[in-house]
Amino acid sequence: MSERVAPVSVIGLGPMGRAVAGAFLDAGHPTTVWNRTASRAEPLVAHGATAAATAADAVADGPLVVACLLDDDAVHAVLDPVPFGSEKTLVNLTSAAPEQARRRAAWARGRGIAYLDGAIMTPTPSIGRPSALVLYSGPEETYRAQGPALASLGGTATYLGEDPGRAAAFDVALLDIFWNSVGGLVHGLALARAEGISGGELAPYAESIFGLLPEMMTRFARQLDDGVHPGERSTIASASAGIEHIIATAETRGIDTGVLTASRSLIRRAEAAGHGADGLSRLASVLAEPAA
Amino acid sequence: MSERVAPVSVIGLGPMGRAVAGAFLDAGHPTTVWNRTASRAEPLVAHGATAAATAADAVADGPLVVACLLDDDAVHAVLDPVPFGSEKTLVNLTSAAPEQARRRAAWARGRGIAYLDGAIMTPTPSIGRPSALVLYSGPEETYRAQGPALASLGGTATYLGEDPGRAAAFDVALLDIFWNSVGGLVHGLALARAEGISGGELAPYAESIFGLLPEMMTRFARQLDDGVHPGERSTIASASAGIEHIIATAETRGIDTGVLTASRSLIRRAEAAGHGADGLSRLASVLAEPAA
Repeated sequence: MSERVAPVSVIGLGPMGRAVAGAFLDAGHPTTVWNRTASRAEPLVAHGATAAATAADAVADGPLVVACLLDDDAVHAVLDPVPFGSEKTLVNLTSAAPEQARRRAAWARGRGIAYLDGAIMTPTPSIGRPSALVLYSGPEETYRAQGPALASLGGTATYLGEDPGRAAAFDVALLDIFWNSVGGLVHGLALARAEGISGGELAPYAESIFGLLPEMMTRFARQLDDGVHPGERSTIASASAGIEHIIATAETRGIDTGVLTASRSLIRRAEAAGHGADGLSRLASVLAEPAA
Repeated sequence: MSERVAPVSVIGLGPMGRAVAGAFLDAGHPTTVWNRTASRAEPLVAHGATAAATAADAVADGPLVVACLLDDDAVHAVLDPVPFGSEKTLVNLTSAAPEQARRRAAWARGRGIAYLDGAIMTPTPSIGRPSALVLYSGPEETYRAQGPALASLGGTATYLGEDPGRAAAFDVALLDIFWNSVGGLVHGLALARAEGISGGELAPYAESIFGLLPEMMTRFARQLDDGVHPGERSTIASASAGIEHIIATAETRGIDTGVLTASRSLIRRAEAAGHGADGLSRLASVLAEPAA
């Protein structure tokens, strides 16, 4: 058996774990799978996977163990009791906070397990395809050793450095952007509906809104890195006026304003600190200042 | 003088008002401009505009009066005292809440002024170019009569219907999406920075996040219209777990969590109502339900 088709064990068969196991199978890796609810393994077994009876059995099968569980508590519950033995590598794709990833790396180090932390940035259907984006951090030699196997997940694998929390830190920052955008999308749909505008009527116009974001991200990132926040394109004061219309309309229509009023508090804090004429990238620094 | 180059008066010369006046000038319309701070008119006068000494003088010059002021309070202060006389059309491009637009339309009707409410959806540099998007609502005959002149603003002019609040309702719903996305972008940058990740390091990865939004918008819009919220792609419960990582990381790093905790409250409300296994589009309906 060549190195390129080394056995892999996948622990956790939620939607993402199933996609991950399927990608290893498709790439020709002998793949052992385990899930607390054993029936989840059946479609994978039909495609050639081996179902392990216990997590310990799954770990015993693969020199490479890939965990894709609900959260760090689940990793704790499933993997802490398992004897890993020697010569094992654990690649943990479970979403976690950076501090959790760092603690998990220390736990692995204490047991002689080679450890990489990974963050899958793209949706389930991307796994095994060119559009997949998976970020990794941890010891570079571990990343290099597992690179060929991890290439089975498709797309772009990116190594971010030795700090095992770094992939999770990118993940959390990007999810922060994502969930806020999704929250806005859902709120805009609710507000439109309350004004008699259907989702189907509103959606086509949102495209031009989303199209503005990549350029803003690049520009704000540069401004934050440079510590300069020019207001020539749009200012914190103009955002303040804009958000008032949205809050007033939502209140008139009985739509929850919790997120918007929290945004307004931040904007008011920035204005009170004398940043009203600054560009919106200034808000990133205000977020890191203690509230008065 | 042909109908296509009818005189236009532009009231309000902030960045957007200047762009609007410039577009009318470029299209060959005799253009009168007025701004409270008169010096703002100078570059436009150099390009052929006529500066009016008062808002009343500006209104007297144009059968078509275009207002582009800071907010509805400014419209009130500037236009309420002005005698419009007969045969005037007011196109109000000032950002406003839908109810403000409806009140302004009623005010105009009471004075015999033909009134259209407009919302400019694209940034200042788009005005007069193919990328401009301006939404209008009000009497269709007024929109048809002014269409040739309004075409000077470029891009896509869209007529949304007789309800004068409708353009503002689209505007507010789309700004809702926009400001929440911008807020998330800024928060993600702040969180990354606190984790030692520069803006320049993070920004390239955000592209793949923004790329997910148009499809989600279309899908959630359809689900909301249909009243079905399938959880097969991602669930409210998974959002709940994801947002906890973000809040925990932000708290560890001393980054403001106001917006995120407000989002979490909404998600918890949805879970408490038994919607944890539903897709995220369900949140749009939860936003419209009174909190317990």
